[in-house]
Order: sequence, then structure tokens, then C-alpha cells
Amino acid sequence: MNQSVFDVHPVGRVESPLVDRDLAPRQGDEGAPNAWLVSEPAVRQGIANITVGSEVIVLTWLDRAQRDVLAVHPRGNENQPLTGVFSTRSPDRPNPIGLHTVQVLDIDDLRIRVRNLEALDGTPIVDVKPILEPLDQR
Amino acid sequence: MNQSVFDVHPVGRVESPLVDRDLAPRQGDEGAPNAWLVSEPAVRQGIANITVGSEVIVLTWLDRAQRDVLAVHPRGNENQPLTGVFSTRSPDRPNPIGLHTVQVLDIDDLRIRVRNLEALDGTPIVDVKPILEPLDQR
Repeated sequence: MNQSVFDVHPVGRVESPLVDRDLAPRQGDEGAPNAWLVSEPAVRQGIANITVGSEVIVLTWLDRAQRDVLAVHPRGNENQPLTGVFSTRSPDRPNPIGLHTVQVLDIDDLRIRVRNLEALDGTPIVDVKPILEPLDQR
Repeated sequence: MNQSVFDVHPVGRVESPLVDRDLAPRQGDEGAPNAWLVSEPAVRQGIANITVGSEVIVLTWLDRAQRDVLAVHPRGNENQPLTGVFSTRSPDRPNPIGLHTVQVLDIDDLRIRVRNLEALDGTPIVDVKPILEPLDQR
């Protein structure tokens, strides 16, 4: 199969007290700190309707991940059998896109404060999406 | 802010009866057909632990989307006010990554049949992730 390659252009970056992957929580609900999503001025119009209190899905590019890894011991636990990365949330995977559901706490122009984000400081943001409403409310 | 660019290398493609964006459902639960996720042989080890019956999150690269769009009328309805794309699920957005939660129906080597996927035939697949288990079952 002949596959194309696509360019991801980050639309912002995470500002967080987390700087060390080994010390970061594995998921946002495992003790991750609050953080800022800092958008590029060029996408100002894209974030204009995000509201304080809403839950959003943040997609990041986990730029410190290893892309040549196809199987891992889940949660870094050697007692767990090697598992294909597409059945794990390991950051190490062919396209290291992080998926984070967070609540918006505050908005200051291009800076959006969110609760419990496990991404490291400086992690590029590639997309933000709303949670899907139930079918009858779309 | 000086941003890097990252390369997405698709790990597979969608095989689907859907070929026309204008006729495709807007979300998987709005009448989308079953489809196949066809993986590249190179990532065989990565999909080895996906099981029939499980729910997975598929990330696609919506290669027919427009990337220079920052605001849209939600659901293509001109009566709805222009809304920043990061508050919508529009495929048109700076990094057109599709997010699809689907159930696995069948697995045949590199081919994984899934229920209700709204991605068009040929859409590149960039990642597959498990649904996060509740905190006490990880």
C-alpha cells in the first residue's frame, strides 16, 4: 500500500509544571496538575467559542515519545505481557498523538487554563474538539 | 512562537462504501456503515492485542478536508452562527484529525471490521487507542 505523509502544524503549546516524563502521571485523572493551553495568534478565530466550564478534547503531539515502538509492557510494568501499542495508551507509538479530556477553568485571550492535564511542558497542541453531545442535542 | 512541523505516517486505511463527503453521515452514530480498518503490514505487532467486541478509538487523517478554515456554520447549517472550528467537529480545521469511537466486529489478519464509521473510503488511519478503563481497573 502506497501511503502519503502529512504535515502536522501545531496550533499551540502546553504550559505546565510537568517537565519530566518519568515523574508525569500516566493519565489526567491520576493526579495531573492544571495547565495552560497557549494558542498561536494565527488560530485566534478557531478558539473564539470555547467557554469556561466546558469539557474539551485536546489532541497533542507527544514530541518526546519513541515512534519505532510497536509493543510495550502496559504502564511500564514488566510483569504485564508485551502488548501491541494500539491496545495501550503508551505515548510510544508510530504517530504519538495524545488524547486528553479536560475541563476549561479560565480563558485569557490566547491562554486557556484547563484542569488535570498530564502532557509535559512545551508539548505541541494539534487540535481541540468539543465532546459530542447526545444524538438528540446536536 | 516558533513551532516545529511533525510528519504523520499513516498506519493503515479505511475501506468503506462511503465515497462522497456530501453524502456521508456527520458522525458514526448517525447512520454510518460498517467499514474495514486495513493496517499496514509494518504495524502488525501493534494491532496484535485488539479483540473482537471491544470498543476502540480510531484517529484518522481527513485528507479531503480544508486546512485553512477557522470558523464554520455548525453542521453546514447557514442558520447557525459562524463558530470557531475548535468548538465544532467540522473536518475542516488546521490539523484535520478525525476521532471515531467504534466497536470491533471481526478481525482477519491485518483487516479489522468495525461498526458505524463515518470516514470516507481510503481515509488514512493514524492511530488506534483503547477506551480508558475506569481508574480502579487500569
